[in-house]
Amino acid sequence: MSQPALKNNRLIRALLRQPTDTTPVWIMRQAGRYLPEYRATRKQAGSFLDLCKNKELACEVTLQPLRRFDLDAAILFSDILTIPDAMGLGLYFVEGEGPKFERPLRSLADISALGVPDPCASLSYVTDAVSLVRQRLDGQVPLIGFSGSPWTLSTYMVEGGSSKEYRYIKGMMYESPSALHRLLDTLAKAVTAYLNAQIEAGAQAVMVFDTWGGVLTPQTYRDFSLNYMQQIVSGLKREHDGQTIPVTLFTKGGAQWLEEIADTGCDALGLDWTININEAHSRVGNKVALQGNLDPCVLYADPDTIRKNVQDVITRFGNHPGHVFNLGHGIHPGVDPDHLGVLIDAVHEFGFDIRK
Amino acid sequence: MSQPALKNNRLIRALLRQPTDTTPVWIMRQAGRYLPEYRATRKQAGSFLDLCKNKELACEVTLQPLRRFDLDAAILFSDILTIPDAMGLGLYFVEGEGPKFERPLRSLADISALGVPDPCASLSYVTDAVSLVRQRLDGQVPLIGFSGSPWTLSTYMVEGGSSKEYRYIKGMMYESPSALHRLLDTLAKAVTAYLNAQIEAGAQAVMVFDTWGGVLTPQTYRDFSLNYMQQIVSGLKREHDGQTIPVTLFTKGGAQWLEEIADTGCDALGLDWTININEAHSRVGNKVALQGNLDPCVLYADPDTIRKNVQDVITRFGNHPGHVFNLGHGIHPGVDPDHLGVLIDAVHEFGFDIRK
Repeated sequence: MSQPALKNNRLIRALLRQPTDTTPVWIMRQAGRYLPEYRATRKQAGSFLDLCKNKELACEVTLQPLRRFDLDAAILFSDILTIPDAMGLGLYFVEGEGPKFERPLRSLADISALGVPDPCASLSYVTDAVSLVRQRLDGQVPLIGFSGSPWTLSTYMVEGGSSKEYRYIKGMMYESPSALHRLLDTLAKAVTAYLNAQIEAGAQAVMVFDTWGGVLTPQTYRDFSLNYMQQIVSGLKREHDGQTIPVTLFTKGGAQWLEEIADTGCDALGLDWTININEAHSRVGNKVALQGNLDPCVLYADPDTIRKNVQDVITRFGNHPGHVFNLGHGIHPGVDPDHLGVLIDAVHEFGFDIRK
Repeated sequence: MSQPALKNNRLIRALLRQPTDTTPVWIMRQAGRYLPEYRATRKQAGSFLDLCKNKELACEVTLQPLRRFDLDAAILFSDILTIPDAMGLGLYFVEGEGPKFERPLRSLADISALGVPDPCASLSYVTDAVSLVRQRLDGQVPLIGFSGSPWTLSTYMVEGGSSKEYRYIKGMMYESPSALHRLLDTLAKAVTAYLNAQIEAGAQAVMVFDTWGGVLTPQTYRDFSLNYMQQIVSGLKREHDGQTIPVTLFTKGGAQWLEEIADTGCDALGLDWTININEAHSRVGNKVALQGNLDPCVLYADPDTIRKNVQDVITRFGNHPGHVFNLGHGIHPGVDPDHLGVLIDAVHEFGFDIRK
């Protein structure tokens, strides 16, 4: 089935470092808890996982922020832990404590037993949601598909949930690196197949979230995180339906390693707020586009302060192609949605001005 | 009262970039929960705060790790939140949730009401413990005094405890920067007086822990954290009892800003594990000593792996004066104390070898 043509292609053009009329903007977790309409749909769905696995409701929350704000992209509403769930680890959520796994991986035997899930089978609820969102979007803006990085997924799978210390995964990394490499290799294959399935279902750009790469040393980041993102970038379909599919890699806390991330052959880097975007730009040059990088906490301040800080990021990047505005991490649940509206309008206004 | 001369002055010499026979080592949180004897004393004391405020017991836990390990320094057992407690915010601890304040600061009025605590009055339990530890150490190794940085203290004081988002403190920083500057200025004065009192009571080196500086942007780090650490460095007594008192600054997550931290005039920088120590060394040259920087999770691995990783850090630093071995952050409570023994002996062995 052929999909409708894009009416707003700023995001794709910027990710491919082509000129645009203004700076495109989308927001990590734009479909999320800060929106009252999201909270209502979530309540209707039951649990968080029920919401992820119901294609009608997942599509609904994906589209909600687009009805409020002049966003330049939709991002599929889903969870980063769908792959480990499909591998049979038993994902569940405890209110206020985040994700947990019933059967965390603690041994090579646990790891060897894992297979690469067929995205058309146990993950078809995701590809079905992608197709439905594409249909409902009707070409309004592009749809971004995503996955967690192998390293980030493995932290949850080995720890059994969120972690502060990374005791088990790092214990394994230092003491039994070959076991962890085996897990990461399986995950890299699974993420590649999963993102390719999202692309075939209609995702027009994809992003890999390496939320926990920043807890590694330079050497272990390279060996246990970047290496497997590289493998994914090399295995992705970069053309579909006659269109180029840009790939963005984002390592939170990875500002020290931007050059190496850019060398993977990805199209764009996500930046957190611990680096000035002009410095990042001068380090990676025109090899990749940059996505970011306002401190999400700026949205707790008043509208004037928000506008001033948006202008600062846009001015720092300057009049070059290849900037997608975003926060440096997901929007916080306590933010007033009107404040996000101020941000988005300011991006387009200052992005237009700087191109004059 | 004159204090006994130092029998082991490797730490002080290394912090001042003078040659030593081997690499000195101490461990952040070396007096802490991973030691069964600490847990026993803690139980005897009652609460964590009771332990901090009882000079006999605080002295006892300070000395415990020195009885087990060939450490080159003692660090005063205390909490980073003693200053806000002395300011009247009502510090308390909830098991498993960390520190809390009964009266968090949320307005300029709250902030304006704060005074600089006299360290000889409301904080005399700390200086009394310093004097007692010095006496009991009898010159065996030097005693390190410490404080939290103004920014790090302010995060707890404004949030009312630990934070993931830094909603209130960053909201204040972006929207009412002058209120936050007022708080940070008061804290810088308080920390300076507090560390000077520790020096007068017998601390032979001091360290400022900026545990949360890494959550800031480059500009806000400079304005709201580094600026006030600079003020402290400039106000500290750098000579006491005929001895130079070295000052170490440590910003966790601050690897991007090492040059600027070194420019404060401090003697040494603490490093977390997200940077290779040889790269840090080539960036700051011989301006400062470096302290660090093994990933604390290496201690979950087997003894051979621990030794290999210790050797890697020492080899990377090379045969130069100015390295104090440490972890990149505090030792985790779940570590086997024998593993720390392996680490400490390996530091001295490889540190000796590299000087041949």
